[in-house]
Amino acid sequence: LLGSYEERLAPGSSQVQLGFRYESKVQNFTIYVMQLSNCGSLCLPADQKMYVRVVVLPCVEATRCLFRTRGSLPQDVVEVNEVFSMQISHSALRQKTLRVDVCNTSKSGHEKCLAGAQISLADVSCLEERCTKWYNLLSHTYMPEISKDKE
Amino acid sequence: LLGSYEERLAPGSSQVQLGFRYESKVQNFTIYVMQLSNCGSLCLPADQKMYVRVVVLPCVEATRCLFRTRGSLPQDVVEVNEVFSMQISHSALRQKTLRVDVCNTSKSGHEKCLAGAQISLADVSCLEERCTKWYNLLSHTYMPEISKDKE
Repeated sequence: LLGSYEERLAPGSSQVQLGFRYESKVQNFTIYVMQLSNCGSLCLPADQKMYVRVVVLPCVEATRCLFRTRGSLPQDVVEVNEVFSMQISHSALRQKTLRVDVCNTSKSGHEKCLAGAQISLADVSCLEERCTKWYNLLSHTYMPEISKDKE
Repeated sequence: LLGSYEERLAPGSSQVQLGFRYESKVQNFTIYVMQLSNCGSLCLPADQKMYVRVVVLPCVEATRCLFRTRGSLPQDVVEVNEVFSMQISHSALRQKTLRVDVCNTSKSGHEKCLAGAQISLADVSCLEERCTKWYNLLSHTYMPEISKDKE
C-alpha cells in the first residue's frame, strides 16, 4: 500500500510555498500563504472547495492563532496569496510551531484536513525582510499509522 | 486550558537537536539524533523509558525508513547521540518528510508518542557537510484538536 502511494507521489510531493517576516520594531509576525503545487497527489474531492488552515501553536487564548484562506475548487496549482499576521514577541515566537494544512469541508459540515506541513519557529530569522520557501505536505493518512505501528 | 499549557511552556518549548548530511557520491542520507532539551514540559512518566522515533515518509516497502533510539529514563536534558542512515537518491529525498517523535512504551506494550517535529526535506542542502539545528517539539495533544475544531 505504501509502495503504491509512493509510486503516485513519484513525480513530486504536493507542496506549499510560504513566506515569513518578523518586524521587531512592532513585534509583528506575518505569514504569507503563497501557493500550492502538485495538489493532484492529494486526491481532493473535485466538487468540494479546498483551503489552507494555518495554526500557530501552542495558542494563547487571548491571541488569534488560527487562520483560514478563502476556498477554491481543487486544481493542481493553486495561487493563494493571502497574508495573516499576529502580534508576538520574538522570544515567544521562537517557542511556537506552525501547522499548515490543506483542508476541505465535507457535506456534513466537518472540517477535514488531508495533508500538512509543520514548521518549528525555533530559529525563525526572517527579520524585517520576507523569506519564502517550499515545504512538502505530508498526507494525514500517515498520522494514525505513525502513532500505532511498532515496526 | 491552552492558556495554562502556555504558561507551563513559557520558559521554553521542549526541543530536539538534529543533524543531517547527504553524501551525493554514495547517495546516502544520514540523520543524527543529538539531544533533547526541556523534556520536563513533556510530562513524561518518570518510571517509563523514553526514546526518539524517526520516520522518513512516505516510506517505500523495500527500504528501512523507521528508526528508534535506545530508551532512557526521562531527564530534562537527554544526550542521545545516535546516527541512522539510508540509501536514497537526492531527488527522492526531496519528496520526503521526516517525523521525529518522543515516545515511550506503556505497561500494556503500546507505543505512545507525546510530542514531535515534522521536517520537510524539500530543500535539504546539507551536502557532504553535516548541518545541525534545534527544532521545537509540538505536543501531540494538539493533533486531535487541530483536526476537529472549527475556530
